[in-house]
Amino acid sequence: MSDVAHLGHVEVYTDQFEASLDFFTRVYGLKLSLLDGDSAYLRAWDDYEFHSLKLTKHHTTGVGHIAYRTSSAEALERRAKLIEEAGYPVRGWVEGDAGHGRAFRFEDPFGHVFELYYDTRRAEPGPDDTPALKNMASRFHAQGACPRRLDHLNLLAEDVSVFRTFMETCFGSKVTEMIQLDNGRIGGCWFTVNNKTYDLACTEEHGRGKARLHHLTYATDQREDILRAADIFLENGVHIETGPHKHAIQGTFFLYVWEPAGNRVELANAGARLILAPDHEPVVWTEAERKKGQAWGLKTIETFHTHGTPPAPTQE
Amino acid sequence: MSDVAHLGHVEVYTDQFEASLDFFTRVYGLKLSLLDGDSAYLRAWDDYEFHSLKLTKHHTTGVGHIAYRTSSAEALERRAKLIEEAGYPVRGWVEGDAGHGRAFRFEDPFGHVFELYYDTRRAEPGPDDTPALKNMASRFHAQGACPRRLDHLNLLAEDVSVFRTFMETCFGSKVTEMIQLDNGRIGGCWFTVNNKTYDLACTEEHGRGKARLHHLTYATDQREDILRAADIFLENGVHIETGPHKHAIQGTFFLYVWEPAGNRVELANAGARLILAPDHEPVVWTEAERKKGQAWGLKTIETFHTHGTPPAPTQE
Amino acid sequence: MSDVAHLGHVEVYTDQFEASLDFFTRVYGLKLSLLDGDSAYLRAWDDYEFHSLKLTKHHTTGVGHIAYRTSSAEALERRAKLIEEAGYPVRGWVEGDAGHGRAFRFEDPFGHVFELYYDTRRAEPGPDDTPALKNMASRFHAQGACPRRLDHLNLLAEDVSVFRTFMETCFGSKVTEMIQLDNGRIGGCWFTVNNKTYDLACTEEHGRGKARLHHLTYATDQREDILRAADIFLENGVHIETGPHKHAIQGTFFLYVWEPAGNRVELANAGARLILAPDHEPVVWTEAERKKGQAWGLKTIETFHTHGTPPAPTQE
Amino acid sequence: MSDVAHLGHVEVYTDQFEASLDFFTRVYGLKLSLLDGDSAYLRAWDDYEFHSLKLTKHHTTGVGHIAYRTSSAEALERRAKLIEEAGYPVRGWVEGDAGHGRAFRFEDPFGHVFELYYDTRRAEPGPDDTPALKNMASRFHAQGACPRRLDHLNLLAEDVSVFRTFMETCFGSKVTEMIQLDNGRIGGCWFTVNNKTYDLACTEEHGRGKARLHHLTYATDQREDILRAADIFLENGVHIETGPHKHAIQGTFFLYVWEPAGNRVELANAGARLILAPDHEPVVWTEAERKKGQAWGLKTIETFHTHGTPPAPTQE
Repeated sequence: MSDVAHLGHVEVYTDQFEASLDFFTRVYGLKLSLLDGDSAYLRAWDDYEFHSLKLTKHHTTGVGHIAYRTSSAEALERRAKLIEEAGYPVRGWVEGDAGHGRAFRFEDPFGHVFELYYDTRRAEPGPDDTPALKNMASRFHAQGACPRRLDHLNLLAEDVSVFRTFMETCFGSKVTEMIQLDNGRIGGCWFTVNNKTYDLACTEEHGRGKARLHHLTYATDQREDILRAADIFLENGVHIETGPHKHAIQGTFFLYVWEPAGNRVELANAGARLILAPDHEPVVWTEAERKKGQAWGLKTIETFHTHGTPPAPTQE
Repeated sequence: MSDVAHLGHVEVYTDQFEASLDFFTRVYGLKLSLLDGDSAYLRAWDDYEFHSLKLTKHHTTGVGHIAYRTSSAEALERRAKLIEEAGYPVRGWVEGDAGHGRAFRFEDPFGHVFELYYDTRRAEPGPDDTPALKNMASRFHAQGACPRRLDHLNLLAEDVSVFRTFMETCFGSKVTEMIQLDNGRIGGCWFTVNNKTYDLACTEEHGRGKARLHHLTYATDQREDILRAADIFLENGVHIETGPHKHAIQGTFFLYVWEPAGNRVELANAGARLILAPDHEPVVWTEAERKKGQAWGLKTIETFHTHGTPPAPTQE
Repeated sequence: MSDVAHLGHVEVYTDQFEASLDFFTRVYGLKLSLLDGDSAYLRAWDDYEFHSLKLTKHHTTGVGHIAYRTSSAEALERRAKLIEEAGYPVRGWVEGDAGHGRAFRFEDPFGHVFELYYDTRRAEPGPDDTPALKNMASRFHAQGACPRRLDHLNLLAEDVSVFRTFMETCFGSKVTEMIQLDNGRIGGCWFTVNNKTYDLACTEEHGRGKARLHHLTYATDQREDILRAADIFLENGVHIETGPHKHAIQGTFFLYVWEPAGNRVELANAGARLILAPDHEPVVWTEAERKKGQAWGLKTIETFHTHGTPPAPTQE
Repeated sequence: MSDVAHLGHVEVYTDQFEASLDFFTRVYGLKLSLLDGDSAYLRAWDDYEFHSLKLTKHHTTGVGHIAYRTSSAEALERRAKLIEEAGYPVRGWVEGDAGHGRAFRFEDPFGHVFELYYDTRRAEPGPDDTPALKNMASRFHAQGACPRRLDHLNLLAEDVSVFRTFMETCFGSKVTEMIQLDNGRIGGCWFTVNNKTYDLACTEEHGRGKARLHHLTYATDQREDILRAADIFLENGVHIETGPHKHAIQGTFFLYVWEPAGNRVELANAGARLILAPDHEPVVWTEAERKKGQAWGLKTIETFHTHGTPPAPTQE
């Protein structure tokens, strides 16, 4: 097993905490594990850990930190040492959050904060949240869009090549797909540490922001769940940016909305697609291929290229 | 990464070769990679390897051999040595099939033949089979049920505990779920070598057969694909044994049919369910819990407990 | 246009009013239009009238009355006269309920109470229930199973032939499908007054009840909605009797549960199936054909043949 | 029952007959009932009549004629007389096509040719096309997109108000939804003669064509069928114009493609939506409301406003 097991949780900042929390619980359908000071700890019904989203009151929006869980306590030590030696900015060990034990914090070259942890706290479904079937982490509560689990996030970086080295070095991530621009730069890169097709994507920053988030995504079981969610978003006045449709890259069925504070949130379904080949070579998309639009020909809308959080003031 | 990457292919015997081949291609929707002597090499549209099913003309039915792909050439050597030392019956190295390089063959204590291989042959879509999107292994041909990829198989063994040790030793498989009978025996065990919830299951043999197959399964992208497949099976006179319904164990949405020679074949959809926790503990189902039937209360039909291939003559 | 436009609403009795109301609103997903004395008036989100289900506190279970809306005020008078002349037991004009104007009440030969009405009250979505799209009757609220509209009901009668004459005479109903038993009797009959494949079914009473209800059904947009509902029922401890599966008769995708008081409630999806032919001949199923089970081979479970409401004491 | 029962069939012209026929059978998934001279008679698997699409070799594209079936032989005579008296251009009685008896032909003020007929020929499934269930018109063959039945068509007219009077007069059609432009004109009108939400739509001609077709549509059972069809179209090089998405008007889930000769063809799913109210009032959409785009915010693409067949030469 690799040192790093999976994406664990993401901290998202909001400057409209109440509205964002209402969105993520009632509309998007996450479960509140804990409300603690300025943060809400949320999980999808089948996330096995205490939280996969930490929503934090902040003066701006965007991503607070991104956490991966290691495969063992030893792997955590090993990785921490390796990252330190690689020279990335280290913030050191933190005592951990409500949802896990001690964690090693560090930064990518673009200012995004990451952490690695191993000791974790499992979801603790209460009497009203205990599932009928014991192989489910919590009850399928059917509130709102109600995705199954955290899937991935997408960050923006000014140099995707540099970010790629960071992911390969720190997490042992593999690139499954990428965009090769005509100017020689990498337009985007999709990474994974396990059999998922991706758990993190990085695309080129076209605004002037720093350490920005493009979007955060949870997985639904069926594409129908996403069509149904579109109606829920519509009825609740949520801004639907684009979708439902199917990405050419990764073949993901997607729907993008903006939560009340402006952070882009996705629902995604990958079907039964997994990367099982141990020698999988990255699929490389050319600029010409990207111009064909999404899988079924939908042209990518402009905001998808420019909107990130926190917003780049001069851009939008 | 673990030594063993994933289930690679299964050889299934049929004493009605033409009818079985027609079923697997036209009705079930696999693609013929090669017809070579007494065997047809078949793959699902997104299987990345040359074949995931080897269908072989034989005087009986059941399973020929089961193949897992290792993570590297070194892992293959390492595992071969380890298996030899563990004392399981070794058949030695074989030159490999049409679909892969040299393979190490051995048996479980119940007579099922396994092999490990690393060097493989990729699917080679021809001009009529090239997908529109380059991240797909072959074209989505939409013929018949048209599943995406090989998912798992289920074997029968007289002592599931013994089989469990075999899987843990030889493949480094982890048990994700199991049935604990009141008599102290294990009624069934679900194994995986990667993030899939299972790639092989073993349930207790209630007939008098040897080295029998319970079923072979391919994965569809959506549950709707399985409902649609039920109509296709109905229209083509295929014996539908049970389903579509949802298993309590593993939560798999399933449909079981018998191909013309009698081998049980499943279509399954696991939704977005994966085992990501590095410290996942087996979910243990008691006999009392199993008596509740499938997830939505369907009682398991009798043949599901007794039918395996080759058939146990006195049983059916 | 025919005199009778469509099934309007059904009154269901419950001896566990609070529990039944909680089921129909929170779990099954109907909207409460009015709580008035001993009755709750409920509607599905796209039912255009004030209510399609009147749930009434009663000392027993079963059906209170069944209401069809006529095509015009004149058609109502015409039908009332015709029914009176046909000699069916007439209960006379009633002032109407919270949801509609004056209605003409009468009985079938087995004691079920019917009514015809024309003047109606439309659904009145409040500020929290106003849909985003003006062609929807109310907001898609996404609570529970959340079906779109009332679909049909199934009554039990000791002589289906006699019931058939009643439906043809009183409502101008057409028979779309029926079961012809070997003993010469009609086992079941499916009726419609419009392009729906059926709005009322009658099957032979095998218990000793009088004026019994077999089940009441609402329509979902997709089969996936029914699979999803099965999980909701499971998580809420609702008794799932049978399904999800597909009927051979009418091809309906179905799921049957018992609400807390024991009334059988169905969710159904007919796909895009309609009866458009003006000269549609009834599809006649023989007893032998029925023995094949449901569309995909599921055997009909015993309670489906015996359970009705109110319960027949000696039967269950 | 109304005089006119339902839309029966549409004749579509193609100047690429072989390619169009291959599209409609192999890719779109209609069944060939008869190939006769310059025309192919096609039906969906559950169309009860011999054909719902007559595909005719022609020097241009567009619509040949549109046929509705009356409710009886008397209704046919009655309607023919009424249409003649209304002064619409009458072409007189024709002997009928391969698929039906004598028909009364006439034109709308914009040159589209219509016909009414009653005597019809039922689908005649052969040995390879007989369904497993006797309530289906033909076998569910699962070839290509494989819709269930003809749903509707959309015509272009320079004055939709005038067209509306034509539909109300000749067919007794009701308007279910319409677009009211700020300039006082009607931008579009959706008509039905039965409980379907619409069987024919007319939108304002923005090109300079005459008697043009906007699109022809078949109905699928599930939205998933349309998502699946999008992949089939993609793999077969079919031009996907827009969708899958959901219309705000009528709430139809849609996918538009151009068949090889350029005629726009849709797949649609209306869920369980029907117009059952005998006093349904047209839903009127303002120009401002239309500017919000489709249900989930998708902006309507330009070609959807301009492309019709035959093409308007100066327009495209």
